[in-house]
Amino acid sequence: MSAKIIDGRKIAEKIRENIKKEVAELKTVPSITTIKIGDDPQSNLYLKLRNKACHEVGIKSTVLELQKDIAEKEIIDSIKHLNNDKNVHGIMVQFPLPGHVNPERIIREIDPRKDVEGLTPYNMGETLSGNEQIIPVTPLSVLTILDHEKTQLKGKDIVVVNHSNIVGKPLSVLLLNRNATVSICHVYTKNLKDYTSKAEIIISAVGVPKLITKDHVKKDAFIIDVGIVKTTDGICGDVDFDSVKETAGKITPVPGGVGPVTVACSLINMLKTYRLCVE
Amino acid sequence: MSAKIIDGRKIAEKIRENIKKEVAELKTVPSITTIKIGDDPQSNLYLKLRNKACHEVGIKSTVLELQKDIAEKEIIDSIKHLNNDKNVHGIMVQFPLPGHVNPERIIREIDPRKDVEGLTPYNMGETLSGNEQIIPVTPLSVLTILDHEKTQLKGKDIVVVNHSNIVGKPLSVLLLNRNATVSICHVYTKNLKDYTSKAEIIISAVGVPKLITKDHVKKDAFIIDVGIVKTTDGICGDVDFDSVKETAGKITPVPGGVGPVTVACSLINMLKTYRLCVE
Repeated sequence: MSAKIIDGRKIAEKIRENIKKEVAELKTVPSITTIKIGDDPQSNLYLKLRNKACHEVGIKSTVLELQKDIAEKEIIDSIKHLNNDKNVHGIMVQFPLPGHVNPERIIREIDPRKDVEGLTPYNMGETLSGNEQIIPVTPLSVLTILDHEKTQLKGKDIVVVNHSNIVGKPLSVLLLNRNATVSICHVYTKNLKDYTSKAEIIISAVGVPKLITKDHVKKDAFIIDVGIVKTTDGICGDVDFDSVKETAGKITPVPGGVGPVTVACSLINMLKTYRLCVE
Repeated sequence: MSAKIIDGRKIAEKIRENIKKEVAELKTVPSITTIKIGDDPQSNLYLKLRNKACHEVGIKSTVLELQKDIAEKEIIDSIKHLNNDKNVHGIMVQFPLPGHVNPERIIREIDPRKDVEGLTPYNMGETLSGNEQIIPVTPLSVLTILDHEKTQLKGKDIVVVNHSNIVGKPLSVLLLNRNATVSICHVYTKNLKDYTSKAEIIISAVGVPKLITKDHVKKDAFIIDVGIVKTTDGICGDVDFDSVKETAGKITPVPGGVGPVTVACSLINMLKTYRLCVE
């Protein structure tokens, strides 16, 4: 039997519908600003999708475009200005940043109440302490998919393949907060298969096309593919979809899986920061 | 062949000697305050040991004793007062707190620069982001022992048995920051042995006497026992020491292992908060 294929676009649509209703009932229009530095094509695509989603639900989305060679101090000044602007309810900084800019020094300056991506030290600390306030968007997207499929997490054997600040580390602690047993693998892991082949849920987010093959996957496992890479064969995830779907119980495709849900989850966070700023 | 038994008291002594030298060179005496609420016997013992260590290295340690039934607001007022007191360079809140007090609401009030235990959202977030500032004391103690034994962490298969805010979660992210492959187990884990029996390093901190037996342990593994429970047979750790030491490569005993190193590591953090406040 073949795996159930999760329709991320449908989940995203449902989220947008709910957000749209909530936004319609607000007294003012939520307004968020994204700081974009330089001109990365993949960022541009993501921003375009997010702006479209904002527009659809009634959130005002502004992009503050800064030159690629701008000094760190000037970026920080822009953030301070946005922190103090009462008409701005959410701030995002578009990754990747140019090489001369230290992402942590930038992120740290965002007012935690306006931190749409949940990446400031304060919000990350609350995530780690299980007192979750604003959760990073990609982990929120994974939790949303698991929740949509009514997946019990307590005691589940889960492998996360990624240990970055934006995905793997916060996602792992969020799963621990829900009492899953979590193993975190990455590029330095000696034998990935030893871990993934015993997992009930695998979440992979490394951007290595077809890293996860059917040999990595236990029967009926739930496979969530966060990877997204442009190859000569088209857009591709971390999972060798065609072979894995025969073994897995559930699987998210790429494209049309985690991606659209992540865009929709950023709207959830925008509404959260709006409420923190206004209510 | 029997495991190397790690002498925690010796490691602690070395740390105290170094701290003593550093303190002697400071212009003023570091002064830290511990808020103690109620009268828990185990806390009293730990506080006594820590005060002794402070005295030995030249750090002034004051205990602010509050009544067991004190209102949360009054505790928060005390913390605010200590935050503003220029003569106080570090603040700790002794756990466990009485049932009516929410630990997160209390900890969050501490000025991150005076946060000796590294448990405020800001410091926890910096730990999660790999931009480590003040690390929680027990995880710091484990890292200190691993470092003392010149243990390479990159790519190591490590199991942490504990997923609390104070030990398991921050320790796991600290190990991920060092590129270890980390699995986190706990009371909801279905088959602990499946995880521990493949680990090169096991760190257990659950307070269940003799939970980890020789069947749980791979040959030559490094076993760090953070558990400490009073039983009718005396003080006991999580590890069945006598059987495990025949299989393990290295092992920390209880008592005399992690405990004294943890007390010494709190001195390291006190010196850190002093420098953040004064320099």
